Amino acid sequence: MKKVAIVMGSDSDLPIMKECAEFLDELGIEYMIDIISAHRTPEKMFQFALEAKANGFSVIVAGAGGAAHLPGMVASLTPLPVIGVPIKSAHLSGWDSLLSIASMPPGIPVATMAVNGAKNAGILAAKILGAADPEISAMVEFYMSSLKNMIEAKANDLQNQGYKEYLKGLGL
Amino acid sequence: MKKVAIVMGSDSDLPIMKECAEFLDELGIEYMIDIISAHRTPEKMFQFALEAKANGFSVIVAGAGGAAHLPGMVASLTPLPVIGVPIKSAHLSGWDSLLSIASMPPGIPVATMAVNGAKNAGILAAKILGAADPEISAMVEFYMSSLKNMIEAKANDLQNQGYKEYLKGLGL
Amino acid sequence: MKKVAIVMGSDSDLPIMKECAEFLDELGIEYMIDIISAHRTPEKMFQFALEAKANGFSVIVAGAGGAAHLPGMVASLTPLPVIGVPIKSAHLSGWDSLLSIASMPPGIPVATMAVNGAKNAGILAAKILGAADPEISAMVEFYMSSLKNMIEAKANDLQNQGYKEYLKGLGL
Amino acid sequence: MKKVAIVMGSDSDLPIMKECAEFLDELGIEYMIDIISAHRTPEKMFQFALEAKANGFSVIVAGAGGAAHLPGMVASLTPLPVIGVPIKSAHLSGWDSLLSIASMPPGIPVATMAVNGAKNAGILAAKILGAADPEISAMVEFYMSSLKNMIEAKANDLQNQGYKEYLKGLGL
Amino acid sequence: MKKVAIVMGSDSDLPIMKECAEFLDELGIEYMIDIISAHRTPEKMFQFALEAKANGFSVIVAGAGGAAHLPGMVASLTPLPVIGVPIKSAHLSGWDSLLSIASMPPGIPVATMAVNGAKNAGILAAKILGAADPEISAMVEFYMSSLKNMIEAKANDLQNQGYKEYLKGLGL
Amino acid sequence: MKKVAIVMGSDSDLPIMKECAEFLDELGIEYMIDIISAHRTPEKMFQFALEAKANGFSVIVAGAGGAAHLPGMVASLTPLPVIGVPIKSAHLSGWDSLLSIASMPPGIPVATMAVNGAKNAGILAAKILGAADPEISAMVEFYMSSLKNMIEAKANDLQNQGYKEYLKGLGL
Amino acid sequence: MKKVAIVMGSDSDLPIMKECAEFLDELGIEYMIDIISAHRTPEKMFQFALEAKANGFSVIVAGAGGAAHLPGMVASLTPLPVIGVPIKSAHLSGWDSLLSIASMPPGIPVATMAVNGAKNAGILAAKILGAADPEISAMVEFYMSSLKNMIEAKANDLQNQGYKEYLKGLGL
Amino acid sequence: MKKVAIVMGSDSDLPIMKECAEFLDELGIEYMIDIISAHRTPEKMFQFALEAKANGFSVIVAGAGGAAHLPGMVASLTPLPVIGVPIKSAHLSGWDSLLSIASMPPGIPVATMAVNGAKNAGILAAKILGAADPEISAMVEFYMSSLKNMIEAKANDLQNQGYKEYLKGLGL
Repeated sequence: MKKVAIVMGSDSDLPIMKECAEFLDELGIEYMIDIISAHRTPEKMFQFALEAKANGFSVIVAGAGGAAHLPGMVASLTPLPVIGVPIKSAHLSGWDSLLSIASMPPGIPVATMAVNGAKNAGILAAKILGAADPEISAMVEFYMSSLKNMIEAKANDLQNQGYKEYLKGLGL
Repeated sequence: MKKVAIVMGSDSDLPIMKECAEFLDELGIEYMIDIISAHRTPEKMFQFALEAKANGFSVIVAGAGGAAHLPGMVASLTPLPVIGVPIKSAHLSGWDSLLSIASMPPGIPVATMAVNGAKNAGILAAKILGAADPEISAMVEFYMSSLKNMIEAKANDLQNQGYKEYLKGLGL
Repeated sequence: MKKVAIVMGSDSDLPIMKECAEFLDELGIEYMIDIISAHRTPEKMFQFALEAKANGFSVIVAGAGGAAHLPGMVASLTPLPVIGVPIKSAHLSGWDSLLSIASMPPGIPVATMAVNGAKNAGILAAKILGAADPEISAMVEFYMSSLKNMIEAKANDLQNQGYKEYLKGLGL
Repeated sequence: MKKVAIVMGSDSDLPIMKECAEFLDELGIEYMIDIISAHRTPEKMFQFALEAKANGFSVIVAGAGGAAHLPGMVASLTPLPVIGVPIKSAHLSGWDSLLSIASMPPGIPVATMAVNGAKNAGILAAKILGAADPEISAMVEFYMSSLKNMIEAKANDLQNQGYKEYLKGLGL
Repeated sequence: MKKVAIVMGSDSDLPIMKECAEFLDELGIEYMIDIISAHRTPEKMFQFALEAKANGFSVIVAGAGGAAHLPGMVASLTPLPVIGVPIKSAHLSGWDSLLSIASMPPGIPVATMAVNGAKNAGILAAKILGAADPEISAMVEFYMSSLKNMIEAKANDLQNQGYKEYLKGLGL
Repeated sequence: MKKVAIVMGSDSDLPIMKECAEFLDELGIEYMIDIISAHRTPEKMFQFALEAKANGFSVIVAGAGGAAHLPGMVASLTPLPVIGVPIKSAHLSGWDSLLSIASMPPGIPVATMAVNGAKNAGILAAKILGAADPEISAMVEFYMSSLKNMIEAKANDLQNQGYKEYLKGLGL
Repeated sequence: MKKVAIVMGSDSDLPIMKECAEFLDELGIEYMIDIISAHRTPEKMFQFALEAKANGFSVIVAGAGGAAHLPGMVASLTPLPVIGVPIKSAHLSGWDSLLSIASMPPGIPVATMAVNGAKNAGILAAKILGAADPEISAMVEFYMSSLKNMIEAKANDLQNQGYKEYLKGLGL
Repeated sequence: MKKVAIVMGSDSDLPIMKECAEFLDELGIEYMIDIISAHRTPEKMFQFALEAKANGFSVIVAGAGGAAHLPGMVASLTPLPVIGVPIKSAHLSGWDSLLSIASMPPGIPVATMAVNGAKNAGILAAKILGAADPEISAMVEFYMSSLKNMIEAKANDLQNQGYKEYLKGLGL
């Protein structure tokens, strides 16, 4: 059963939001992904959010830019936890997206990520599922330790090569 | 028949939004005023917006603070012009309210006012009605010339009294 | 008769402001378009604004960047509703344009759009005309439902293709 | 067993963070509450975070202001979901707190709330627990509908009294 | 003959703008002071600016808050140097006033002061007059050296008293 | 005799600051241009500013980016009017340059231009010289009317060609 | 011998800057404290900075608000490390002070503290002295562990009393 | 013995942070350089910071972007002075990095540099070492005078060539 729903306001958000899907793919967590615009398809958004719990989802990830109403509106219509991804906007660098998602009023929280933080939305979804599912929690721990290993391997390379060689290796 | 609907997300917005009502009262333009929260009463918001045109309204004024989704969501559900009033927020001074209302995506405009600009929302509503109603347009012109007179009277006082006396008159 | 006037401070604003004209073209709404600078041709701006109502316009759209005084100055000289489009500025990303247009004092509203939101200015102009003209209002409704259809078609494609194929289709 | 841990960087954050505790009290969800400073008691923070999962917690709420490292550091040391509450700072209004918590790098998400959004942190914690616990999910739904009822009761009062009387009732 | 014109958009700006007048009083430089609103008395503003040079003024100081169009509009209508004072706005702390005055387009400069920097506007007016009038230039030099003396006297007191006594002397 | 001194903190500011020189060239106003860094050549800066009046200058234009101390420091050492040009900075878009130059304390004004507003600095310098020199003032008036003519010619082209042809003419 | 010099641009900065002095008092580190304004007493500033090393100082702490040139100018005139304290400004909350101090160009670093972070300036001065003086380094370690103890004592009180009692104890 | 430790959160920071290393190379000051992530290798970070003093370091330079916890966390675990370099972030231009590093709470200072100010971190490290080491202090003085010479050489070229030739020499 699909546990996570990933929705976004426009297909122009997909190049960012795919990072959420890719992380869930990596962990083998099933998800639904769809384009649902709070402003252009408000009825679909309404129906999706009202039925999300009954449809078996446990967590919703919603990405949107600019006025970015999607995450907050979905959160107002479901008891499920909603994670909001502020998509970098064309003219104000994502400041509008970030504030429109983070500044929710008391009663209707949205778990706000960094601007373009779609990968972290996938990780947080896994952490939330993992709060009740030891297997997923273990996968998150494994992922975190693989991050550590990757950084440590880079650190070793830097020690061994010195920073000048290392930068050459990066092509810089 | 009521031409203008004034809605706001919380009764804490009323001390600001009443300035819109007062201006319409001054011009004798009838209006409906209600509390409708995009986040706490989303169904009511939906129904209000979908039926607003059929209910005879010509313009909608919506005030909200923080994530401030009300004006944009209403605008997504009606062909009527929607005026948005960003209410000053407790912690970020209204930056969030302003950006959440102004940064609407292509397709769904909201006529954004200044932070706490509820009086101007009433004036813009009258200007919009006046675009098709010469009587209201004339009232707006009269209002604008009364503003001019008021400023000019103050300017005269300042010329006559000098700035020191004038400031005393202001109790400063 | 031309119902809408589109004015802008500089021909460098035209690549953005044309989106307003294009939308009105799409709906068959006639308009006048001109370059009028508050700072470089203040007399022309004055005359235009003072005569706009007598010349039969119902709505004015004004685009400007940086200090962006055009929309507010025009609004101070006419009872017509004025829509302001903050043009993205070269050095401060449009923050100055947005604030210079939105922060109008009580008495003189400007219906502020998003940074570079010229298309929305056209849509709002149509909504304002539609408040008194059922035909235009119906066209706006039709436009809004076409937006919905477009998003839903994209959503269907995404469902059918999966996100990886869909991104390929976008060339990403 | 205590499912939620509420931690904060300083006892000066307690007047805000207690709103999280109060919400959990309201729903009968048990929690631990403690002062743990990333900067002044880093060892305690480390130990708390490393052992949080083994100690049976499912969700961690962390409040901090200014540089606000607590939520992010805790999140780096546990697979549990971490909710961050940016506390309004004395000099920059919480902009620093918000950005320091929201802008986490890929790999280590923090579910960021609004500035001073401690109540929403409690609600999100309940939504996260509710993702796996139907009873808690039902309580969240009940809470959300009580919010709706409260707003609708206020809206009714406003309709019945008119806005002038209503404002008097608010003592304004 | 009056060399300096001090204008402001509203009498609410007078408690700040008087600091400009007081400085000119101190130096014995004559000035005219008036309330002229770009938005509420645009015709008066136009006439004032167009005739300012012929009326014998050498420098114009203009204070305004929020959208703050007065300094820029006056500058567009006169070859005289215009000094703009951004008045602190009620909701955005003067950010809007500062940007609306500073971000003038090429061709129409405004000499922008700090937020509420009306005293400095007076000093700059004197420096500008002093560029051609050795007596005024000498008075500016005298003023600057009196500032130096005042600071040095305070520094001496601090050395003699120690910081604890000195703070007591300030009543702190 | 050279009336205007143009100084800048780094030769990387020259591509912007040359616009000031070019304007003065256009009007035939003589000037000195130099690189003087407040931070890297503080003694030279000190000497330049202290002697500027005796050396016959009437106005100083100073451009700097980032912490941008040059205009303010020069202003603290001379009774001459100082015009500050905030150069766009590499990482914060000129916000730091603008604030560092505009927020001068009472006593030491700097006439702040827009970010990268070097041309306007030249125009303001001419306006300041023109306050006492009718010939320069007339040249400024001539320049302002040529700006008007240029805009009006473009407006005529737009009327004649329509916006689509006009944009083609711009190569857009 | 006095190792630390504490300077500030105005005696209005003293209520903040005294926190630096108090910390040094606590550790028994001798210091000089003086009012030196970059803008009002530039010659004194110059002389102080040029002679600071020869006068035996090892570290300089400089506090200033608004354009805040003092720390950067002092740093340009001495090889000693300079710590800058951005004082909260009246109108822009210290954003200007922070940026004016932090955005120094390559070559002339200033160790920037938080807005009003004068106590931390004292601690950093001690850390810098401690880099070469084991006794001072030990005192810093002792201070850091006393901070830890203080927080842990508060945490214990909170555990023992519960948050409601604890808040009563704070008078809240 | 290595006196300076340069650490950074990611190898993507290395192209900036190398400027610190290069400056220390230039002065012949030995240093260690490593990748240590507060979020991905928190245990390594902890151990590094706790042992840094015992390992003989005198100063630590830490670069990080976004939430940028590394400098502050290291500072909380060592009595050594810590210099923080805010790395420009992908989406918010370094505003988040700057505030996350600068807004440290009382007790735990971080010497904050400009965004991407890694070279200045190296210079400040040298100034700090120089506070107790006359040789290093002399090298810093020599470096500062070489900066002065370089600027003065450029100023001479500009005087000799005129600005048009000089710009050609820059290829502009």
